[in-house]
Amino acid sequence: MRIVMKFGGTSVADIERIELAADKVKREIEEYNCQVVVVVSAMSGVTNQLVKHCGDVSSLYDLREYDTVVSSGEQITAGLMAIALQKRGVVARSWLGWQVPIHCDEFHGKARILSIEKKDLDERLNTGEVAVVAGFQGISEKRRISTLGRGGSDTSAVAMAAALDADRCDIYTDVDGVYASDPRIVKKAKKLVEVSYEEMLEMASQGAKVLQTRSVEMAMKTNMPIQVLSSFKDNIGSEKPGTIVRREEDIVEKEVVNGITHSKNEAKITLRDVPDVPGLAAKVFGPLADAGINVDMIIQNVSPDGKVTDMTFTVTRPESEKAMSLVRSDEDLRDIIVSSNNNVAKLSVVGIGMKSHAGVAQKMFQTLADKGINIQVISTSEIKISVLIDEEYTELALRSLHTAYGLDEEA
Amino acid sequence: MRIVMKFGGTSVADIERIELAADKVKREIEEYNCQVVVVVSAMSGVTNQLVKHCGDVSSLYDLREYDTVVSSGEQITAGLMAIALQKRGVVARSWLGWQVPIHCDEFHGKARILSIEKKDLDERLNTGEVAVVAGFQGISEKRRISTLGRGGSDTSAVAMAAALDADRCDIYTDVDGVYASDPRIVKKAKKLVEVSYEEMLEMASQGAKVLQTRSVEMAMKTNMPIQVLSSFKDNIGSEKPGTIVRREEDIVEKEVVNGITHSKNEAKITLRDVPDVPGLAAKVFGPLADAGINVDMIIQNVSPDGKVTDMTFTVTRPESEKAMSLVRSDEDLRDIIVSSNNNVAKLSVVGIGMKSHAGVAQKMFQTLADKGINIQVISTSEIKISVLIDEEYTELALRSLHTAYGLDEEA
Repeated sequence: MRIVMKFGGTSVADIERIELAADKVKREIEEYNCQVVVVVSAMSGVTNQLVKHCGDVSSLYDLREYDTVVSSGEQITAGLMAIALQKRGVVARSWLGWQVPIHCDEFHGKARILSIEKKDLDERLNTGEVAVVAGFQGISEKRRISTLGRGGSDTSAVAMAAALDADRCDIYTDVDGVYASDPRIVKKAKKLVEVSYEEMLEMASQGAKVLQTRSVEMAMKTNMPIQVLSSFKDNIGSEKPGTIVRREEDIVEKEVVNGITHSKNEAKITLRDVPDVPGLAAKVFGPLADAGINVDMIIQNVSPDGKVTDMTFTVTRPESEKAMSLVRSDEDLRDIIVSSNNNVAKLSVVGIGMKSHAGVAQKMFQTLADKGINIQVISTSEIKISVLIDEEYTELALRSLHTAYGLDEEA
Repeated sequence: MRIVMKFGGTSVADIERIELAADKVKREIEEYNCQVVVVVSAMSGVTNQLVKHCGDVSSLYDLREYDTVVSSGEQITAGLMAIALQKRGVVARSWLGWQVPIHCDEFHGKARILSIEKKDLDERLNTGEVAVVAGFQGISEKRRISTLGRGGSDTSAVAMAAALDADRCDIYTDVDGVYASDPRIVKKAKKLVEVSYEEMLEMASQGAKVLQTRSVEMAMKTNMPIQVLSSFKDNIGSEKPGTIVRREEDIVEKEVVNGITHSKNEAKITLRDVPDVPGLAAKVFGPLADAGINVDMIIQNVSPDGKVTDMTFTVTRPESEKAMSLVRSDEDLRDIIVSSNNNVAKLSVVGIGMKSHAGVAQKMFQTLADKGINIQVISTSEIKISVLIDEEYTELALRSLHTAYGLDEEA
């Protein structure tokens, strides 16, 4: 068996934590007799300090130099982790992005991995040596260091796992898994045992705190199971140690609803009495796309009279003013009444099981109605139902839905 | 013209200092229209912190991993310096050891440079681009990062200068040149305008604080002039900006005495009534060499009666006890009286001019005699006269000799 163990910033925050992580690696090898690739982030605070250094020198820094500077954080942890493993009698060596090499494109600061040369690592792993790989980095075609963008070590870990045909990619972090809801709001929130890639992506607002979205996309594409585990608990031998993210087919018990997410960063923009003619949507959203404004929900109902209709969409709050003025500045749209509302929250219930279950949406609507919460907008996808509600009801709605869908942790 | 400008740790201590160093580079280019290679050390304190991290994880760390960790200090400065130069409109890019590449041997932690591939840098320099090279590091044949040992950035700078056929290697540091004596003791100590490689090496105890010995050896071998300059003064246009270290032939005014050095780290060991037979010296010093104890001065006079003689040698104080016990443990030497004295100081006068001047030694002896200072041991080389005296007279002797040889700075 071959596994990748990835330790994030808080899991390698200082020398003591690096030692604990090394203990985990040693125990994993002893317990399961497996080959291990360790992927490490920078010690917490280090990357921020290095980014600050670059900004202090110049606000317009060369991203190739930025990458040279910030990639040193993971380089340091990789060397220290190798030393910590060797101290425990584990044969190990560090690998920097250019040593593997991990080939990346030229988009410095947010590069994408193109390919990984596995020959050297493969040989070493087969001798039982542990490979400690510096996360977040690779090498460009021009032999410069590239970084994958913040949180990129998750992506490094999944990419290494895929390239080396690992059986699993374990992500050690400061939470012990993925929860059905934000445990800070829903005290009884359930830890999920299994979740599909699609659900994880739909729960991005929650999931992003645990796993970088790009790493989930890559895991989905390469069908690599990810296990989210706490680096501060002893998981060995535990029956449900964390949360496994895998493809839908491999999930035994498909929950109807696996998670309820919320976002308070939404602004709702409504266009009234829009002429119901072809090309209107393109006219509205074209300028927004050009300006790099990301539109989330778009709802347009059938026109009651065949002449005019209403259209609602959401953007992030910081971008709402700019979006408003872009829509208003279009000559063809100047007769349209445009209004915006920042006091909205988006609630979504997510679950692969809802594909084959009726009544999931109805339960959501009824639960909110029972609490007197008005639904402003509804939008659905195959495995997700999203609504916009008045922001002040967010917590109440979240807890009520949690109970309604049976997601509360059993006492 | 092509020059190398090397900035040490205090010269790139923080962002502000990096900016000042970048100013210097820009002015140098504008003033002299030259091609520039910048070699940088780690920001002060960074290397110590990284070394401490390694030691905190394990007292017996793998030097290959140590090199991976500590080399990141220069990597960070190189990136930041490139950004600082770009901000000033100077086209620049950073080069890490493996990017140049600077090929080193496998002696991690104290590697030696084997060769430097100059093609890429040469081309870029010819277009006017400034190359910012991370000092202290290279790449081994096994594609691991090697470091050159503490102070190795001086060596990197001289090696780059030699490989790239630079006209000069400027070393920017926190002193403004090489002084005839330690200015902390001899207030009137003269700053030397020119000094030969040989003198610089003989003045190692002083010179080492300014230039790493290995870098001077390399400069001597490749005939590369080194200029020692202050990074905190404006040297452009100044007539005698710092000290130039170059070969003897190129020095116009050969001073009889160019420097007076002292060391309080000496211990004197004396063997009395040693049989004057062949092989005795080898018997005494063999075990010391095997134990890695560095013997400095060795003095043995002709035997007065042809039977027995006295022998004196010096070692560093921390090694004196071990040296004593090694000598005593030899069966053949057990009848010899061995004594040691830690309260000695070594004083040396150094100067290439003394080769062709009589009376230099006599002046030293007379000056010390005039102050009532007893000379315990004398040893001479072509360009150096060293004596051992009682430690408590060190400062007095130093100042007296300084005045006697006319080395006091003119008021």
